[in-house]
Amino acid sequence: MHLPLKGIVVLEFSQYLSGPCAGLRLADLGAHVIKIERPQKGEAGRKLAIKNLWADESSLLFHTINRNKESFTADLGDPQDMQWIKRLIGQADVITHNFRPGVMEKKGLHYESVKEINPGIVYTEISGYGNHGPWKNKPGQDLLIQSLSGLTHSTGNYHDNPLPFGLGIGDYLCGNQAVQFILGALIRKKKTGQGALLQLSLMETLIDFQFEFFTTYFQSKRQHKRSAISNGHSLLSAPYGIYKTQDGYIAIAMMPLQKLNAAIDCEALTQFEEEDTFKKRDEIKAVISTHLLTGTTTSWLKKTQPLDLWVMPVLNWQELKEKQGYKILEMEQQIHLDDIEITTTRCPVRINGQIFLSGKPAPQVGQHTEHIKAALSLKYE
Amino acid sequence: MHLPLKGIVVLEFSQYLSGPCAGLRLADLGAHVIKIERPQKGEAGRKLAIKNLWADESSLLFHTINRNKESFTADLGDPQDMQWIKRLIGQADVITHNFRPGVMEKKGLHYESVKEINPGIVYTEISGYGNHGPWKNKPGQDLLIQSLSGLTHSTGNYHDNPLPFGLGIGDYLCGNQAVQFILGALIRKKKTGQGALLQLSLMETLIDFQFEFFTTYFQSKRQHKRSAISNGHSLLSAPYGIYKTQDGYIAIAMMPLQKLNAAIDCEALTQFEEEDTFKKRDEIKAVISTHLLTGTTTSWLKKTQPLDLWVMPVLNWQELKEKQGYKILEMEQQIHLDDIEITTTRCPVRINGQIFLSGKPAPQVGQHTEHIKAALSLKYE
Repeated sequence: MHLPLKGIVVLEFSQYLSGPCAGLRLADLGAHVIKIERPQKGEAGRKLAIKNLWADESSLLFHTINRNKESFTADLGDPQDMQWIKRLIGQADVITHNFRPGVMEKKGLHYESVKEINPGIVYTEISGYGNHGPWKNKPGQDLLIQSLSGLTHSTGNYHDNPLPFGLGIGDYLCGNQAVQFILGALIRKKKTGQGALLQLSLMETLIDFQFEFFTTYFQSKRQHKRSAISNGHSLLSAPYGIYKTQDGYIAIAMMPLQKLNAAIDCEALTQFEEEDTFKKRDEIKAVISTHLLTGTTTSWLKKTQPLDLWVMPVLNWQELKEKQGYKILEMEQQIHLDDIEITTTRCPVRINGQIFLSGKPAPQVGQHTEHIKAALSLKYE
Repeated sequence: MHLPLKGIVVLEFSQYLSGPCAGLRLADLGAHVIKIERPQKGEAGRKLAIKNLWADESSLLFHTINRNKESFTADLGDPQDMQWIKRLIGQADVITHNFRPGVMEKKGLHYESVKEINPGIVYTEISGYGNHGPWKNKPGQDLLIQSLSGLTHSTGNYHDNPLPFGLGIGDYLCGNQAVQFILGALIRKKKTGQGALLQLSLMETLIDFQFEFFTTYFQSKRQHKRSAISNGHSLLSAPYGIYKTQDGYIAIAMMPLQKLNAAIDCEALTQFEEEDTFKKRDEIKAVISTHLLTGTTTSWLKKTQPLDLWVMPVLNWQELKEKQGYKILEMEQQIHLDDIEITTTRCPVRINGQIFLSGKPAPQVGQHTEHIKAALSLKYE
């Protein structure tokens, strides 16, 4: 397959999760992504392990996010190394960085300098909170920005503490937003010759993610409340949510209350009208909760699914992995790292019916420095 | 500003959230997005209200997601209307749809037919579970797919029920993934002339979103557990999480335990070693929880932030809206709908330092049909 971004060169001055997530997707799409790393230690994310799992000297997490990339080491304080970086910039289409504001300026690698070398460059800056204002120098960390952004008031039940999403949602979304704008800017460049400075932050990304909530809040002027029971979406009516059964859990999405009643034979539901489902949602959900405890997940599925009601079981990763519906997606791929094989997920989109995989592991620190220098030397001879 | 996708025509045969989210971002980027809707009733999402809020005959939610688009009505069972649709397809660059598998085939609008009319078309299909396998005809609804995908085991505490994210994460992510691949395919088309069929599903998207979790699970072969207390990420050590204080909540991200101790003067923490922070995280978090209840959020921030420890307050939407750090982002924009003004969020990225807004409201059903037909007639005369 001719991958969409074949021939596009991306320089990744990024670390940890948000910038490298953008690079991962660009690499999946066929771009040539080169991580610019410090000599020896390399990118800081190499030492960020989750569950203390390591692949080699770098963590499993690093390998997950940085597969299919190359590594070029340079000391950005060293004039000779900077010469190489500038040559590389001359050949690149895209730069990403997620340093705190001011860091790239100090190195002489901010947009104003870089566009002198390469006016068509698409220069992408990911920050925590933008480049000005009182938070600009605060740590741009995912949990902290979830907490500031209001997001932690969306999940969990009314009487719970504010609850963060249990994974790096801001970083992941920011990487994905960046890719959309990078590709948009490349399309514009092809047409107009113009490069672009793209700036986004975890905070703006998490506000955009909550666009339904913010728009509702702007209109109603009232902080809305999570359900006290089985909250699935603080703006939706009963029965929406996850319920405990005799032997597990079941998810119930939108449906008319009396259709649910007809399927699960829950007499007590007849006292409620359809118009009550938002206002009295906690009472209704309490009735459903008690009733669903009297049967198994399978028994409820048998009663509801043949009626095409929007109901599904709740699975963990292990249970999901055994399902035929998971297997046919072919979401797994292997990365080959010397004598270690790492199983990870693939790029989630099919092009012309084909999945596309890449077994190329994350690079060793500086693994491609000499090779890239040799190629650049040929160009500049 | 020359918006990146100026001149690109997108036909949106999509409803509810996932497909229309992709269209919203493409429109933000400058594309001409035309919703293809049923006569009279229009897109089903027009009647999907959250918190029972309405703008006009369509819900506030619909207006939030469909601003900056046009509407063309056609009865896809009517041969004359289909002639117009085929002319439109001849002029379009991109098609999106998120019908259940088989629906577009029945209308004669599947990729194989459409590419006969326009071989360069980028045809994008969003489904719940892919086009084959046991789940293909199941409802492709966000909460249900969150529940199947394992995601509900990531958030909340160990003893809680599985917890869904309190908003439409699968739909939103799927829309954002679609945009990345649509733009990638447009770049390839410019180079090779090739169109593309792009296929993605909420399920694949939510698995990709959990790539850290899945990779860790594949390696360790064990379902990991959420913390019993203040879970912030099931794979990270103490103190990571949100804690209650005397008067509110505080978020604490990664940091060495003894640095935290030095800042908040929590004697009981000295009994733990840094190596214990994953294994004994619940014991450690219990100690921190008790201690933080003895002071206000402000008092803890004063003790920790000057040391550059990764700590922030936890805000709701109302509190956030009053902060200077929010105001300087200029995230709000107004949509003008006859005599109603709707405040919503803007596209979260800056290009060359500029935000870009669009006050154009979501269209009335069929608002642009005649105008578009007239323009097409000129082309085909």
